[in-house]
Amino acid sequence: MKKFINTPATLLEDSLDGFARAHAGLVRLGEERRFIARAALSPGKVGLVSGGGSGHEPMHAGFIGHGMLDAACPGQVFTSPTPDQIVAAIEAVDTGAGVLLVVKNYEGDVMNFEMAAEITGSPIATVVTDDDVAVEASTWSTGRRGVAGTLVVEKILGAAAEQGRPLAALKELGDAVNRRTRSMGVALTSCTVPAAGTPTFQIGEDEMEMGVGIHGEPGRRRVKLASADAIAEELVETVLKDLDPAPGAPCLLLVNGFGGTPMIELYLMVQAAGRILDRHGVKVARYLTGNYVTSLEMAGCSISLAALDEEWLPLWDAPVETATLRWGR
Amino acid sequence: MKKFINTPATLLEDSLDGFARAHAGLVRLGEERRFIARAALSPGKVGLVSGGGSGHEPMHAGFIGHGMLDAACPGQVFTSPTPDQIVAAIEAVDTGAGVLLVVKNYEGDVMNFEMAAEITGSPIATVVTDDDVAVEASTWSTGRRGVAGTLVVEKILGAAAEQGRPLAALKELGDAVNRRTRSMGVALTSCTVPAAGTPTFQIGEDEMEMGVGIHGEPGRRRVKLASADAIAEELVETVLKDLDPAPGAPCLLLVNGFGGTPMIELYLMVQAAGRILDRHGVKVARYLTGNYVTSLEMAGCSISLAALDEEWLPLWDAPVETATLRWGR
Repeated sequence: MKKFINTPATLLEDSLDGFARAHAGLVRLGEERRFIARAALSPGKVGLVSGGGSGHEPMHAGFIGHGMLDAACPGQVFTSPTPDQIVAAIEAVDTGAGVLLVVKNYEGDVMNFEMAAEITGSPIATVVTDDDVAVEASTWSTGRRGVAGTLVVEKILGAAAEQGRPLAALKELGDAVNRRTRSMGVALTSCTVPAAGTPTFQIGEDEMEMGVGIHGEPGRRRVKLASADAIAEELVETVLKDLDPAPGAPCLLLVNGFGGTPMIELYLMVQAAGRILDRHGVKVARYLTGNYVTSLEMAGCSISLAALDEEWLPLWDAPVETATLRWGR
Repeated sequence: MKKFINTPATLLEDSLDGFARAHAGLVRLGEERRFIARAALSPGKVGLVSGGGSGHEPMHAGFIGHGMLDAACPGQVFTSPTPDQIVAAIEAVDTGAGVLLVVKNYEGDVMNFEMAAEITGSPIATVVTDDDVAVEASTWSTGRRGVAGTLVVEKILGAAAEQGRPLAALKELGDAVNRRTRSMGVALTSCTVPAAGTPTFQIGEDEMEMGVGIHGEPGRRRVKLASADAIAEELVETVLKDLDPAPGAPCLLLVNGFGGTPMIELYLMVQAAGRILDRHGVKVARYLTGNYVTSLEMAGCSISLAALDEEWLPLWDAPVETATLRWGR
């Protein structure tokens, strides 16, 4: 296992401490590292809390700040955060308007966020993301998995929350964005969970895992390595068929790296996907490209397409100031 | 070779087209893809042009925009851009105040940027970066190599250029920032140049290359894999000894990934480096963490430390709006 690490047991705490150190003006680390939250809250705004297993960085901690999340709960690598972490985060960011939870559709996450919602006294609503079209159920999920599209949901909700929208309206918006967002990924290599010390799966030098999940869990099938154009073709066509965007709808294309794939390849995939979308007459109104929702050091990428409402474009464009996503004014 | 690629011959053009597609409002691609430049220039401002071999993305193209570069010339992977590329970029961005070239200290780059400076009619000054303390000369360089510290030079120069400072003053500032910036890197794995198709170097499962260059070229020595703390110790102590910052000087810590190292590990290295700097009483005033100056998909990182003048802090903090670095206002 080749990683910058002291011991698997201290990886997460060292990494969280480093994150809090590097972004001291922006975030604070909760007691016992239960959560990371904005350094300064906006009173009266609905709190936005997400979280999940670690190993997907910069998601979710990198999305904390003005215009996006209020807090995130980091579980151990690929392990759900505990209900008490989530309760602590909820209580830290509820300034009176309640808290919206954004939860990726994995059984452990859904269960623990639900439990926290029952325990806390705060008004709670929950948006469960399930944008992955690759499989209908998996090792860790009943129904589709929540993957990179979660970023789109969190960004749009974050902007809407800053506008002062109430909890019920945000819940409705988050569900709508999730329904209009579809993703599919492919892995070229495995990742290695530090506590395990060996690769999550074995894969040949000429193979790739089509439809892989963000924990290295199986996708649709193991196939021979193909050209970037052929890979983009399968990902984009599958996503498009499932999404079925209305003609002329402004779409957002997110080419997301899984951690081990460099930008030169991700931008090549933007071009490969873009050519296919051009052919279909899909209007790509916004692009986002980078390693945002990762699987540790896995080489691979996912392609997400979101068919945005015209009303959502200003929310996507709205100012955001987090460790990772920053734009606007 | 596991990459998202169609053919090695078309990798760069596909990737540049994807970059230009994704950032259409921000940049434009020059004729025959000779350079990438800002979509809109600021008349009367000194133009800032950099470039070098591709494979280090997001450097330099990701640093084009308000507050940083005006143009960048992408050579083939790990190959210098040609003089005619550089001349075209200079002519595209010179709005009357001349052009400052920022060149990493590699023989091919230095020669080709020099040749371009001789050919063009524009007033030219050049800052050569050589922040890598690992080796005093290498396969591709006479003297120290220019590595991740180049980003620091480009950011500070970019802000100063926006203020309307003249060419000679910018040249002086760039040289001063370069002299106060030191870096050293370590590789856990090799990268694979697409045209070669095989790893640049062989390395054992329990080994790392200490002092590696950003093309996978040799560093100081091949050693056994060590803990993150031990690695940080060697990198930080070496950099610190060479930099010898004045007591109390505000420092910038850049933990830079080489492309294949995920954020969870980079933030761990921030913490590891931070603990050592705390012990030395070094005041870290600014942090930057991410995969910025990469070697394709190489796993590894470098640590850069810049001892900033008080006058340079506002330049580092000044608004920047590029594909990759964005902050301020």
